[in-house]
Amino acid sequence: MNLLLLRPDDFIKPSQVQIRGRRLRHINKTLKAKTGDFLKAGLLNGKIGRAEILCLNQEVADLRVDLTEQPPPPLALNLILALPRPKMLRRILQAATSLGIKQIHLIGSWRVEKSYWQSPFLEADKIHQQLILGLEQAMDTQLPEVHLHPYFKPFVEDKLDAIAGDTTRLVAHPVAAASLPTTQLASLTLAIGPEGGFIPYEIEKLTELGFSAVSLGPRILTVEVAVSSLVSRLAYNLESDSRKTHNCAP
Amino acid sequence: MNLLLLRPDDFIKPSQVQIRGRRLRHINKTLKAKTGDFLKAGLLNGKIGRAEILCLNQEVADLRVDLTEQPPPPLALNLILALPRPKMLRRILQAATSLGIKQIHLIGSWRVEKSYWQSPFLEADKIHQQLILGLEQAMDTQLPEVHLHPYFKPFVEDKLDAIAGDTTRLVAHPVAAASLPTTQLASLTLAIGPEGGFIPYEIEKLTELGFSAVSLGPRILTVEVAVSSLVSRLAYNLESDSRKTHNCAP
Repeated sequence: MNLLLLRPDDFIKPSQVQIRGRRLRHINKTLKAKTGDFLKAGLLNGKIGRAEILCLNQEVADLRVDLTEQPPPPLALNLILALPRPKMLRRILQAATSLGIKQIHLIGSWRVEKSYWQSPFLEADKIHQQLILGLEQAMDTQLPEVHLHPYFKPFVEDKLDAIAGDTTRLVAHPVAAASLPTTQLASLTLAIGPEGGFIPYEIEKLTELGFSAVSLGPRILTVEVAVSSLVSRLAYNLESDSRKTHNCAP
Repeated sequence: MNLLLLRPDDFIKPSQVQIRGRRLRHINKTLKAKTGDFLKAGLLNGKIGRAEILCLNQEVADLRVDLTEQPPPPLALNLILALPRPKMLRRILQAATSLGIKQIHLIGSWRVEKSYWQSPFLEADKIHQQLILGLEQAMDTQLPEVHLHPYFKPFVEDKLDAIAGDTTRLVAHPVAAASLPTTQLASLTLAIGPEGGFIPYEIEKLTELGFSAVSLGPRILTVEVAVSSLVSRLAYNLESDSRKTHNCAP
C-alpha cells in the first residue's frame, strides 16, 4: 500500500478522515506510522496528496487530508483478456490495475474452462478488492472497469467493434509472424488469449475485426507474465505519444 | 510445459528417451497425448526439435527424439535483484527464465529481511526446479545461472563491476527523474530493488559504479510486475539490436 486510498464515507469533516480495519492495520503494522506522520493519500476516482495523522491507536486513525494533485494519466489501452484461472485472475487484475489500465474485458474462449465463470472471485466485490489493491500499489485513484463476457462469438460479433473504436487493434498470438509495432500509437485495444492461446477460429474472427496478430518473440510466456510484458512494452509506444503532447506543446 | 525438457540421463539409446514422473503425468493428463503423437522437445543446454511417442502408459513413456534447431538466443541482460520474499521468489525465477535471462544475481539490501536468506526455496535444487519450469514454459533449453550475494556492500564493491563489464548499467528507481533509454543497447545489467526500493545509500553506491537510475513512470509496481515490465520493455532495445545483426548482415 503505497497510497492510502480513501472513500467518500471515510470523511468525518471536509478535510478529515477516520480509518479502521485493513488500512489501519497497514498504517500501524507495516508502516509503523505515528501521530504527526504524513502519508501519501488519494480519494477513489479523485485527487492525490497527503494525509497527516492526527491521532492513532489500534482501533482508529484520524487524519487531516490535503488532496491537490491529479492522479497519473490513464493508459490508453483496453485489455481484452481470456478469463484466466481464478487463482491467477486476482494477481492479473492487480497487475493490470497497477499498470494503469482502465478498461478490462474478461472473455470466454475455447480454451477457457467453463467452470472458471462460477468462481467466487468473479463476484463484483471480490473484483473490486483486487482493483483497490492495484490502485494502492500504483499510487493511482482511478478505478478500472471490469466487464465479463462469457461467450466469445457474441462478444466479438456484437460488442468488440464498439469497444475498440478507433484504437489500434492487436491480438497477442505467440505463433504470429509479425512482431510488436514500433510506431507511436494514440490508443490501443490489446487481446490476450488463455494459456495455450486463442484457437485459429478465434484468431480469424479477431482478424476480421481488424486485429493484427503479433508475437512477443520465440518464447511462450504465461498469461500473467504476458500481460505485464505486453502492456509495458506497448505502453512505451503510447507514453511517448502522450509525453509528446504534454511536454512539447508551446 | 510447452517443451518436453530432456536431461542426458533420460536417453536409453542415442535418439530415444524414457520419461517417468512429473513429465510423464503432464504428457498423460494435461496433453492427453497418445502413441504416435509428436511433442516439442529439447535437451537441457542443447538443441530443440520434436519427440515421437513410441509407447506410453501410466508408468513410462518411450520417445524417439530428433533435435536439430538452436534454442532461442539468450537475452543480453544480467538481472541484479534484491532477494524477494520466498513466495514471490519462485514465480519471479520462473518469469525471469521464461523471459530469456541467463544471469540472475540475488542480492542483499537494506530492505531485504535477513530471514529470507534462510528460506528452503534458496536451496540449489529448489532454485533449479523453478528454472526448469521457466524453460519448459518458454520452450528454451539454456539454463540460467543464479548467484546468491547476501551482503550488498561487498557485492557492489568487489563483484558487480566485473559482472556488469561493458554492458549498459541501469538501476530501476521509482523516484528517478530519468525514464528508460530509447536507444538500442548491445547488452544491459539491470538492478531492481526490493519492495520499497533501494535506500539512498544503495542508489549512491550503484551510481558510483556507473549505474543510471531510471523510472518506469509514475506508478509503483510490485517487484514481480516490475521484473516482467522492465525486462520486456528493455528487451525491445536489445532485440532490435540483435535483429539488426542477424537479419541485415550481407
